Amino acid sequence: MTLDPESIRALAFDLQGTTVDFYAPVLQRGEALNREKHLSIDWAALSTQWRALYREGMDEVISGRRPWRPVEQIYRDALDLLLDGQEFGRAFSAAERDGLNTVWTRLDAWPDSVAGLARLRARFTLAVLTNAGMAAAISIVKHAGLPFDGMLSGELVKSFKPAPAVYELATNCLGVAPAGILMVASHKYDLEAARQFGLRTAFVARPLEFGPNGTADVTPDPRFDFNATDFFDLASQLGA
Amino acid sequence: MTLDPESIRALAFDLQGTTVDFYAPVLQRGEALNREKHLSIDWAALSTQWRALYREGMDEVISGRRPWRPVEQIYRDALDLLLDGQEFGRAFSAAERDGLNTVWTRLDAWPDSVAGLARLRARFTLAVLTNAGMAAAISIVKHAGLPFDGMLSGELVKSFKPAPAVYELATNCLGVAPAGILMVASHKYDLEAARQFGLRTAFVARPLEFGPNGTADVTPDPRFDFNATDFFDLASQLGA
Repeated sequence: MTLDPESIRALAFDLQGTTVDFYAPVLQRGEALNREKHLSIDWAALSTQWRALYREGMDEVISGRRPWRPVEQIYRDALDLLLDGQEFGRAFSAAERDGLNTVWTRLDAWPDSVAGLARLRARFTLAVLTNAGMAAAISIVKHAGLPFDGMLSGELVKSFKPAPAVYELATNCLGVAPAGILMVASHKYDLEAARQFGLRTAFVARPLEFGPNGTADVTPDPRFDFNATDFFDLASQLGA
Repeated sequence: MTLDPESIRALAFDLQGTTVDFYAPVLQRGEALNREKHLSIDWAALSTQWRALYREGMDEVISGRRPWRPVEQIYRDALDLLLDGQEFGRAFSAAERDGLNTVWTRLDAWPDSVAGLARLRARFTLAVLTNAGMAAAISIVKHAGLPFDGMLSGELVKSFKPAPAVYELATNCLGVAPAGILMVASHKYDLEAARQFGLRTAFVARPLEFGPNGTADVTPDPRFDFNATDFFDLASQLGA
């Protein structure tokens, strides 16, 4: 907490989970499908499994076990895996699965995101640094009405966070040395990798990331330069 | 003018000249340098030559005569070429030339740009599609406070408009077919190349692009789907 905000020139934001709600929109879409199709799928559990498979799919790319695939495809393949293993999977045609898969491109902002980012943007350059594909990330920013100066996706270097190539993309495309960039995320693995690359780090607690009964890690962590309760708190700590 | 705006999903904007003023900021910076160094350089003429060399540098890359270089380097090399050919060039050290070169990253919005884009963003997804490098483009968007959903630069495919690869980047990263993207620019060569790639096109007249005594082409052109006098007019024509 002794880092001088004057040394920071740009903020790089994780999108899914940190800036937009990764949970409720999927749950709402799923519950609408339950009503429509007279099903009783536990969408809270299913979305958690879906995200776990998404993470596994990205890790396979980072480790080199599989070639790069667009995030949309990782999500879509994971959905097949989840539905095909269940009786209720038969209720979903390929076209319906394609439709359901777009839920990840229409995520809602957390309540503090738009106004918090606007405060931060008045002082710093703000960029997205996301594992979502470019099209999905642009769709999310549009849907949620988020004010950013730039948009960077692991897709541009065919990798995913926490691979160093993605943090390197941020320094290259922002034209700012690592120590002048503050990585903002609610996921500690992302921040730890950013820190090891030389970026500054800000942890933002998102207690509802896995829903009201979820187990999001919201504990402040001394490894990071800043620990904030939301984007307003971060703005205050940065003097923005 | 018979194109249905309903068929358009995303707008891709040229930045330098179309969305921000490519001329006055360079002139102002140059005139300040004249006063500071007691010089009488004609910055209107010099900036026109500078931009012409910048265009030549990009065309050398597109034609394959030279390997790709960052736009900043093309600008910087062009500046050396201009100054080294003149007596007054001796007044500028390498560091001062580096400083002067950053003028291209701090261009001001045209008076209608911010509010016009905000109107258009309420209905369409808006992305930058620029020949400026990523860092320069992010800096321009930040400096001018422009509201975009996405940021795309020829740097991402190591090419420049009017090469087809840059328009292809737009369709890939927006996830929208060419016919669903409207390219917005004040430069007809850019629009013509976009049109040939299959994008829709909107010409926006920027009479001051080369200054009050410049010769900007502001004539509406039937090749393009829309011809507008500024971003407000474009928004009205698109029903936004």
